[in-house]
Amino acid sequence: MFPKARITAAALCLLTGLCVALLVSTHAPATLADKISSPTYNDKGDMLPLKDYREWIYLTSGIDMSYSPKAMDMQGQSVFDNVFVNPAAYRSFVATGTWPDKTVMVLEVRRAKSKGSINQQGHFQDTAIMGLEVHVKDEARFPNKWAFFDFDAPDKNGTLIPEKAPCYTCHAAHAAVDTTFVQFYPTLLPIAKAKGTLAAEFIKEESSTGSK
Amino acid sequence: MFPKARITAAALCLLTGLCVALLVSTHAPATLADKISSPTYNDKGDMLPLKDYREWIYLTSGIDMSYSPKAMDMQGQSVFDNVFVNPAAYRSFVATGTWPDKTVMVLEVRRAKSKGSINQQGHFQDTAIMGLEVHVKDEARFPNKWAFFDFDAPDKNGTLIPEKAPCYTCHAAHAAVDTTFVQFYPTLLPIAKAKGTLAAEFIKEESSTGSK
Repeated sequence: MFPKARITAAALCLLTGLCVALLVSTHAPATLADKISSPTYNDKGDMLPLKDYREWIYLTSGIDMSYSPKAMDMQGQSVFDNVFVNPAAYRSFVATGTWPDKTVMVLEVRRAKSKGSINQQGHFQDTAIMGLEVHVKDEARFPNKWAFFDFDAPDKNGTLIPEKAPCYTCHAAHAAVDTTFVQFYPTLLPIAKAKGTLAAEFIKEESSTGSK
Repeated sequence: MFPKARITAAALCLLTGLCVALLVSTHAPATLADKISSPTYNDKGDMLPLKDYREWIYLTSGIDMSYSPKAMDMQGQSVFDNVFVNPAAYRSFVATGTWPDKTVMVLEVRRAKSKGSINQQGHFQDTAIMGLEVHVKDEARFPNKWAFFDFDAPDKNGTLIPEKAPCYTCHAAHAAVDTTFVQFYPTLLPIAKAKGTLAAEFIKEESSTGSK
């Protein structure tokens, strides 16, 4: 189990809206690593643990991100979010600018520490994980292709987040590419721009807002 | 070239002190990926570009880290640092708790943005890279086994940072494992503790300081 400050599934969605899914791409040759990182479920529909996600492709990190002008109540605790994607899905995105079936993205939340060892300013990441969420594209399994799962710990099964949760509507409305927040992934955004895969709604939204 | 706020090599060292080196391990079978990520140099001793480092193993990110009570002068600009290591070196560390010859660690610095798309709070990472530094373990090449290189851009050659630069003395004095700041790598610190590979100086320093 995670520590006291465990974040609810919905809060995680809103925290960064960064999502995930495992891939057995039809566009890239399957490798052992790809098979290991494909999403699997038990009879109840829970997702089985993604034990090796820290060895997948890293997309980005943020700190204390929130989509509301009011910061989330993290009890005064700053948190980092790290995002990973399974390697086959990443390779497919680099080639096409969008996500294949079986894409799996993992959002990992860690406490931000300030003073420790010789560090005196800023923040670095704690060893304990405060939250873990997965965004998976599994076209045959989910009516809208994508689903979110919440994990209490990396070695526990993940619970499907109901379709009415705000993460689904927020991602559908504001995501740069195929319900995923590629606008926050620094190496993928230029690819999506070059490939012309940015969502029309996102382009419209960007043209009406500034960025700092 | 990087933008105006280009960080000097010495400043980068002090910013996080997170380091790097490419690996052709004698302990793990060499793969194509390992060969690609091995360090190579030109006749002048410059390191050739590490084009695929974003596909290596991610270790951690920090924001605005500084080893001085006074924050670094980043002209009011917050910056993230992301650290990657070549996969063969990572596998060796997981098995042994320390780094093999040909370890390569990459420290990438990116501007922290605040408002953009629907994000209203906290920070996310910009597409432009503000700095890139490598810490490489190459026992036959460097008298003290490790060296730092500064890169003006990911696709340019890296320049050797002179041995008298403060990053060398700081890493030698304060690093948790083999001159590297494993104390800031959340998945590696527990491994080093379990394998008993923490430096004696680091253990002594930790016992006399607190952590928040």
